[in-house]
Amino acid sequence: MSEELNSGVVSTKPPSGFRDFVGRAAEHRQSLVEKISSIYRSYGFEQIETPCLENLDVLLGSGGEENEKLIFKTLKRGEKLEEALRKSPVEAHQLADLGLRFDLTVPLCRVFSQYRHQISLPWKVFHIAPVWRAERPQKGRYREFIQCDVDIVGSSSVAAEVEVLHAISSGFHQLGVNDLVLHLNHREFLQGIAVKVGISHKINEFAILLDKKDKQALAKSQQEMELLLGRSLPLEVSDLLEGSFTLDKAEKYAPDAISRLRELIEKLQSSNLKVKEIVFDSSLARGMGYYTGMVFEFKHPSIGYALAGGGRYDKLIGRFSKVDVPAVGGSLGFERLLLYLEENSRIDLESKTIFIPVFDEKLRSLVMDMADQLRKASFRVDVYADSAKLRNQFKYAAAKSYRWVLILGEDELRTKNYKIKDLSSGQEKKISESQLVAELRQLTS
Amino acid sequence: MSEELNSGVVSTKPPSGFRDFVGRAAEHRQSLVEKISSIYRSYGFEQIETPCLENLDVLLGSGGEENEKLIFKTLKRGEKLEEALRKSPVEAHQLADLGLRFDLTVPLCRVFSQYRHQISLPWKVFHIAPVWRAERPQKGRYREFIQCDVDIVGSSSVAAEVEVLHAISSGFHQLGVNDLVLHLNHREFLQGIAVKVGISHKINEFAILLDKKDKQALAKSQQEMELLLGRSLPLEVSDLLEGSFTLDKAEKYAPDAISRLRELIEKLQSSNLKVKEIVFDSSLARGMGYYTGMVFEFKHPSIGYALAGGGRYDKLIGRFSKVDVPAVGGSLGFERLLLYLEENSRIDLESKTIFIPVFDEKLRSLVMDMADQLRKASFRVDVYADSAKLRNQFKYAAAKSYRWVLILGEDELRTKNYKIKDLSSGQEKKISESQLVAELRQLTS
Repeated sequence: MSEELNSGVVSTKPPSGFRDFVGRAAEHRQSLVEKISSIYRSYGFEQIETPCLENLDVLLGSGGEENEKLIFKTLKRGEKLEEALRKSPVEAHQLADLGLRFDLTVPLCRVFSQYRHQISLPWKVFHIAPVWRAERPQKGRYREFIQCDVDIVGSSSVAAEVEVLHAISSGFHQLGVNDLVLHLNHREFLQGIAVKVGISHKINEFAILLDKKDKQALAKSQQEMELLLGRSLPLEVSDLLEGSFTLDKAEKYAPDAISRLRELIEKLQSSNLKVKEIVFDSSLARGMGYYTGMVFEFKHPSIGYALAGGGRYDKLIGRFSKVDVPAVGGSLGFERLLLYLEENSRIDLESKTIFIPVFDEKLRSLVMDMADQLRKASFRVDVYADSAKLRNQFKYAAAKSYRWVLILGEDELRTKNYKIKDLSSGQEKKISESQLVAELRQLTS
Repeated sequence: MSEELNSGVVSTKPPSGFRDFVGRAAEHRQSLVEKISSIYRSYGFEQIETPCLENLDVLLGSGGEENEKLIFKTLKRGEKLEEALRKSPVEAHQLADLGLRFDLTVPLCRVFSQYRHQISLPWKVFHIAPVWRAERPQKGRYREFIQCDVDIVGSSSVAAEVEVLHAISSGFHQLGVNDLVLHLNHREFLQGIAVKVGISHKINEFAILLDKKDKQALAKSQQEMELLLGRSLPLEVSDLLEGSFTLDKAEKYAPDAISRLRELIEKLQSSNLKVKEIVFDSSLARGMGYYTGMVFEFKHPSIGYALAGGGRYDKLIGRFSKVDVPAVGGSLGFERLLLYLEENSRIDLESKTIFIPVFDEKLRSLVMDMADQLRKASFRVDVYADSAKLRNQFKYAAAKSYRWVLILGEDELRTKNYKIKDLSSGQEKKISESQLVAELRQLTS
């Protein structure tokens, strides 16, 4: 629709950076949510659902770093808004009280602390929901997207890390995504390097720079790192940026962390983790400031970005409950996964809906009865929902890519001898009432 | 946790009027969403998903009436916010650009207009998603709740109304909610009364007052209506408030509307709509200003509020596309329905998860292998995810109300003769590998 035609009429586009999903696209999304939920449940993880809006003091100062700058904040209402507006000058931070969550980890920690007394440890929990970030709109970057988090709270053991990584990799495997490479690192190793080169007070900036490494030229990363350090690159940092650290070489900077990583890798291997390869990735940092131990990413050789990532965050819950409770978890990138599945035709696109046109309005209730019978036998049945000429009804069926049409004219309904028309071949087949369900099942299977 | 203990720590409560759902409660919600989606799909309705945030000009002036006052608006960001703050005085309406949707009908109309060229008419569509209203928090009133909408766009026929009402009533029936009463009215009849008593220019206020009727004493409604009319109650209005109109008596105020209602009722009856009763409810108005034709509510005798409601809105799409497109639809009250199902024990609460403790960390990978085999056979299996004493692992199983424990100690794994322990009786049963799946299936069925 041209701009001109629209003048005086409200724009019908979604807000910039947001998306609509119509028909099959929406169904794929829900179906993927259902599949992932079902996989996590099969591992004994239980679900939580939290409000999309959180109090701003919950969201701010949580170690979300860059993401905290991207919070959509909601305007106060009524008297509280008026009060904030009466001040001179009006200050932005007094205008908002709530914000849309930018991740699912912060709400998880709040919820754990609130319901602590009714939760059995270790708490195996998953959370699938949208999050919002007010990023500058650009291709492939959305302001609203779904995350799928899976976490274990209350265990500091390697066993918990193994369980989380298994649930995630098993999810990918069951969805048909194979050949993944698991990248592992440990925050204490990065901390060890930071101490060695004298920037332990800037550990978050250091991690954010490392995190950007794969998104820009090496020279640019080296330059930015020199700026952060205030001097030319020490050997350790250039090794990090070049990814030339092995576990052996890394050991002296953080012996405990590296020994824990070795134990984790060994247990993942012996427990038959469904990945192509497990690698120590010394420059893997993960942007969030709240990670304290191992961090991970699942990558696919054919895709430039990670399909899942996470790590151990043993200090974040302490923000809410005063007592530190260890936790490890990860997030599966729903939007990227869906894109991968669609591009690799891992989603069944054939329509199995049975279409029933209405030959005459006075037959509609009989047609609806038949449709209900077929639905009871688990078919999807679309009865044409307007009073229209048959020609238009068949046009609708073609436009919807329906293949199977059940012909229920006056004769067919009277004699209970029906016809099934295959729109792909144009052929019709006669069929008796007693054979109808079996025949349709065979045709649509 | 007392206020005192919390001092200096961020509050762990959800924002006022919002809710967390933990464990089974969250699972029930997702399961109900899945069931309702599946029912609507079985009727050939296709799904849409729209952004939670819409441009404010989409949400405002849509006929949403009272609900428009309750929009959560998001603060502008960056340069645009600074610009709005530089003005003196700062004006509230210049501070926000987006808002959380307050219903699903307005986004539906926007989406239809945007994707008109790729949609086949009549468009049978459903939408299940949260909506937000900044209501004053009070018991049973939430600021975030799920709606389940089902609509047909592009048909002005009674057939479309029949189809929508069938899909909704069939949904209730399949979820085990029976004995519903369908209340019907027509906006043109209310318009006819309004013209007769001289307040057709205040039709929205009139409808809102009628809508409040069941929530307060009759005398209060009569008083408010007199205030709106500016005179004592005419016979028609007191008949409306007392609900004493029959179709025959209503006919003279809107003959076409009443004849259409008669046709609708007849077709609903002949098509075997799954309700206990269909009644003409002359005072049913539905609060939204956008309804233009028939309006409906599904009520249950044991519940004071409607479980679903909706109507025909033939003018709303014109706001977005300049061309009026007829539409009819309804919304099933997800939160109320869930409450009803929970209170009437219509939700299966028994846990069928198989719990496997880990007797020794060195057995964990073997235990995990077995768990994966059982998951392939569709069991939910929870392997204890921490390194802990057996006593604690069994405490965990009891706290989670798990009934079935698979014993995989060193002997059991070596001999492949396992034990299943029933925590409800304390009894153990020996079982060979070849019988394991069949036996577990029987026990948990």
